[in-house]
Amino acid sequence: MRDLIIAVDIGATKILGGIVTREGRVVERIKEPTLANRPVSQVIDHIVGMVERLINIGARPQDIAAVAVAAPGPLDHINGTVVDSPNLCWENVSLRDELSKRLDYKVLLGKDTNMAVLGEWYFGSSQGCRHLLYITISTGIGGGLIINGQLYYGQNGGAGEVGHLQVEPRGVKCGCGRNGCLEALASGTAIACQARDLINQGRGQAIARLSTPGQPVTAREVAAAARQGDKEAREIVARTAEYLGAGISSLVNILNPERVILGGGVVFGWGDLLLMPVSAYVNQQIFRLHSRDLYIGITPLGEDIGLLGCTAAVLLDLE
Amino acid sequence: MRDLIIAVDIGATKILGGIVTREGRVVERIKEPTLANRPVSQVIDHIVGMVERLINIGARPQDIAAVAVAAPGPLDHINGTVVDSPNLCWENVSLRDELSKRLDYKVLLGKDTNMAVLGEWYFGSSQGCRHLLYITISTGIGGGLIINGQLYYGQNGGAGEVGHLQVEPRGVKCGCGRNGCLEALASGTAIACQARDLINQGRGQAIARLSTPGQPVTAREVAAAARQGDKEAREIVARTAEYLGAGISSLVNILNPERVILGGGVVFGWGDLLLMPVSAYVNQQIFRLHSRDLYIGITPLGEDIGLLGCTAAVLLDLE
Repeated sequence: MRDLIIAVDIGATKILGGIVTREGRVVERIKEPTLANRPVSQVIDHIVGMVERLINIGARPQDIAAVAVAAPGPLDHINGTVVDSPNLCWENVSLRDELSKRLDYKVLLGKDTNMAVLGEWYFGSSQGCRHLLYITISTGIGGGLIINGQLYYGQNGGAGEVGHLQVEPRGVKCGCGRNGCLEALASGTAIACQARDLINQGRGQAIARLSTPGQPVTAREVAAAARQGDKEAREIVARTAEYLGAGISSLVNILNPERVILGGGVVFGWGDLLLMPVSAYVNQQIFRLHSRDLYIGITPLGEDIGLLGCTAAVLLDLE
Repeated sequence: MRDLIIAVDIGATKILGGIVTREGRVVERIKEPTLANRPVSQVIDHIVGMVERLINIGARPQDIAAVAVAAPGPLDHINGTVVDSPNLCWENVSLRDELSKRLDYKVLLGKDTNMAVLGEWYFGSSQGCRHLLYITISTGIGGGLIINGQLYYGQNGGAGEVGHLQVEPRGVKCGCGRNGCLEALASGTAIACQARDLINQGRGQAIARLSTPGQPVTAREVAAAARQGDKEAREIVARTAEYLGAGISSLVNILNPERVILGGGVVFGWGDLLLMPVSAYVNQQIFRLHSRDLYIGITPLGEDIGLLGCTAAVLLDLE
């Protein structure tokens, strides 16, 4: 039996590649910047090169079941095309065909958040869950849905774009063109932007002091300052939690899931600082029926969730 | 074979009862006010009496397959309980048990919007549709979901509460306790409230002139005035369409359905006056992938949709 899966998780800022066993053990791992501003062909060269390096490091070709790739949406999983990703700035890139041409393995392509929800459901804390909403908060905000014990794609593979739930009609413009989407207000990018605006106004000094000189300020420093009790950082945290709480409350009223599981860089970095106010907000806002059996938590899989989801997709034989 | 279904659709303002054939023909029909402000026991007496009258008018007991009842949510379909309906002001009413005790037929109880989406899917314009979102706009706003060719209940039967998607965080208070839910801003009640406020300010004269003297102004007069070109009425229509368009855009980004079908008193009364601006707004706001194959329309079933949905639920042998 071909026992290893080569998994590649393409994020807006980094590409994570790994060799994963059928049991969900990541035996090799490479992490590199995406360089999404380069031409698409160079990013594809990079992915092919990463797959080849992974195989050289730790897998015999005859042991490889498939190469599974997670890419940002909206993604047409039927045609294997990245349609119009606001975070990668890709339009109609036939990623699956391009990779298949250049790799001697079966290539499976899925939307990053669909892969992530599969990872959480197959290898994480939500095994056996019938109705699961996974939300990732990192550079952008995305989501994946397990409904009736199945990954839910929607009509065109576009289901789960929870980052493009509008939570503030007069809010800042989102990459998708709408105003005040959850992603525009509560993603890592949005948090960093709020911190930068503060500092540019000569405020946010506690956040600025914690930043690496010469590097742009990030959500990480906001959390660090908030943990030290800084009022301005706490305000950013509170606002972020409120936007997320409002969005998740609407999602729970609509979907009535068993579990809402959070992941992504901001969630892994902020932890309870974010989870506690979000949970409290949601449970106070939603219908009693919807909160009765609801669990809200953080995935235990950390940043390997995408690699593990790619592996789950191969094991479940999804296209 | 028992060929007739006794269907009862309990709305916030009216109860519609009918005798329906397996082919979806409504052969008898009774419509009466709900009188939701009376004690629950009286409303239940009323429903039992209506079922008995229907049978007396047009059905032999041996021809009746079941009594199927649609009631407002949130409703726990497993226990047959109306949990905390903001529109009926009922709390934990064991409606299925109460009706079963008093009627000599199998009683099936479902959430009104779940019954409606079943009606549209089984007897309406969406037969064979895999991913359908039905939205009803009447006294309140609710929704039902067909996902992967199945009615989607969610964990506790609470899925589809699209009226409690928040579209305006500083909007007026909703019956559910949140601010600015779609229901609080774009339901028949919300529309009537905006018209009444105008008239109370000495404005909205075109709307007032079209109202029945001594009767409260409703969404109907707003539509009539808008069709005559009245500016103030048109503003209410535009605002309603914008709230609905914003909510439906978020829902389409999250669910990527094949079809979004609208129904309910406001939609049947307003027709294209509402559908055209809502469709235009949604198609302009959502991702290209999500709009590619999307159809937005109005159910052809009119106010019988709930009765037909009750019938579909019996034929599909749902609990």
